Amino acid sequence: MSSRSDKSDIRWSLVAHGGAGAIARGDLGPGQDAAYREAMSAAARTGGAILSAGGSAMDAVEAAVRVLEDDPLFNAGRGAAFTAEGGNELDAAVMDGATLAAGAVAGLTTTRHPISAARAVIEGSNHVLLVGEGADAFARSRGLEQADPAWFFTERRWRSLERALDRAGLPRPQRPAGAQDATQGALVHEEGKYGTVGVVACDAGGNVAAGTSTGGTNAKRWGRVGDSPLIGAGTYAANAAGAVSCTGEGEYFIRLGVAHRICALVEYAGLSLQAAADRVVQDELTALGGAGGIVAVGADGRMAWSFNTSGMYRARIADGVPLTVGIYKDED
Amino acid sequence: MSSRSDKSDIRWSLVAHGGAGAIARGDLGPGQDAAYREAMSAAARTGGAILSAGGSAMDAVEAAVRVLEDDPLFNAGRGAAFTAEGGNELDAAVMDGATLAAGAVAGLTTTRHPISAARAVIEGSNHVLLVGEGADAFARSRGLEQADPAWFFTERRWRSLERALDRAGLPRPQRPAGAQDATQGALVHEEGKYGTVGVVACDAGGNVAAGTSTGGTNAKRWGRVGDSPLIGAGTYAANAAGAVSCTGEGEYFIRLGVAHRICALVEYAGLSLQAAADRVVQDELTALGGAGGIVAVGADGRMAWSFNTSGMYRARIADGVPLTVGIYKDED
Repeated sequence: MSSRSDKSDIRWSLVAHGGAGAIARGDLGPGQDAAYREAMSAAARTGGAILSAGGSAMDAVEAAVRVLEDDPLFNAGRGAAFTAEGGNELDAAVMDGATLAAGAVAGLTTTRHPISAARAVIEGSNHVLLVGEGADAFARSRGLEQADPAWFFTERRWRSLERALDRAGLPRPQRPAGAQDATQGALVHEEGKYGTVGVVACDAGGNVAAGTSTGGTNAKRWGRVGDSPLIGAGTYAANAAGAVSCTGEGEYFIRLGVAHRICALVEYAGLSLQAAADRVVQDELTALGGAGGIVAVGADGRMAWSFNTSGMYRARIADGVPLTVGIYKDED
Repeated sequence: MSSRSDKSDIRWSLVAHGGAGAIARGDLGPGQDAAYREAMSAAARTGGAILSAGGSAMDAVEAAVRVLEDDPLFNAGRGAAFTAEGGNELDAAVMDGATLAAGAVAGLTTTRHPISAARAVIEGSNHVLLVGEGADAFARSRGLEQADPAWFFTERRWRSLERALDRAGLPRPQRPAGAQDATQGALVHEEGKYGTVGVVACDAGGNVAAGTSTGGTNAKRWGRVGDSPLIGAGTYAANAAGAVSCTGEGEYFIRLGVAHRICALVEYAGLSLQAAADRVVQDELTALGGAGGIVAVGADGRMAWSFNTSGMYRARIADGVPLTVGIYKDED
């Protein structure tokens, strides 16, 4: 893969998202608005500090995603949506644009940081995607921190589950043992059925990486897996094109192969990253009827995002460029 | 999506594969060689009859894959490889190039025809990918035929499992209850760790479809899932580009997004289907260190395949073109 052939003057950069959806001005109270901005800033600062110190894009992506996974405001790790059976099934993927190495996990129930499990798949197996109990067993075998259901529990998400099951005429499951919300979950904004976190980064060496983590859809059934852990759908990175992380109605992102499609438009059709992102998200995704958005970064450090919803939690930071955070459509 | 803009004079066509791998001349005895050719022919004829009668590409793909799933010669459905725990975990995907509708299942253990479960996901859920017990439960809820472990059992694949576990120093699991090989499994050729079946078709309406089904890798652990059920990796179809089904070392196919990448090269770089297939398989896949192959068909009816292994079981049939079957590299 080529790298930095079209170098901008940005030495390193990082863009993070915390989910896209129905988030119009006025939907969030002042406390919520501030909490989400602070959370996105914290994640971006964590990744930016690594890049600023000469760290790798992979390290920055993993560290920034872990911050978002631990924050109950987001549907990933702690604060994950519940399945119809009242459990949490966590998915994540990470990809290294320098080598096309990729790791992913789906249906984790006990691993605190799914993004780190995804990265461990790269380093500790010959595989790319592990699912279900086997994936948790693998994570345990690699020494990754395990958590019980109470860790992931938030009252707000649990009530969302109950409402969804009531609407569908499905029985309410028992609350997980020991479940009590010790978090700031009351500030959670339900941005719709979908929520995901993701980070893309370009390091000073001109290597890009992408990572995505999610709790999946509220009240999901039948072992449904969305786009987040699927390389090419919700997550893709190649130095020749860029790194992309997606959020939204996963099924549409899988059918279009959104992350890989954006990279293919850059590599094969010569579009800029922003033009490629807009074509896939604003035109193709919208035409298919799907909602969501993406963040992206090129190996030249250029940053991009695109979403066709009313809002997307997002933050960006780069060498010599101050941190900016946005939620609504009318923000930069 | 456009269709038949570059129409050839082929009204309908179908290409099937039964796995790629170390299959050099001399590796197969005469009985094996004949058995594989007959099996590939039967699948292609089944799909061809549907297309010839004006049936859809989706119907032809599903029917032809079911023939291969029921044949114990192939690592899909009956005859699937065993996991390290001695079970069968079956994966499949199908995609409709006319609508980009896609369905997939991973980790099925009781559903006889995984390809039909994948198709049912399109028609019976709002999802694309279902995994594990939930996927079998969904298939049952749709009335799909269930089978017990003895149905999938073949003596040859069981011995492969035992050899692999012995080499890895892992314990041998118990044979499944009632397991006795009532099949022609003695003719199975172990083409290496990887085996998959797949079919692509173009119907008289100019619509393409792709389907892939596999038992995964021998002695797999940790809930490993390969490329077959991943839309964009092992399976992709879009009328604007074509339909592709892959077989080989799944992890490499996921990292490159082989099926979607071939389609992107056709759609965005203007390559012919054959040139795109060769570039991805012969150049990119080989450079990354991966082994395998693909079959493809365009919405103009043109057929293609490409593999970088010594052989790939394959058959093609088209309107006005007689059925041809191949195994080795030096065959047309």
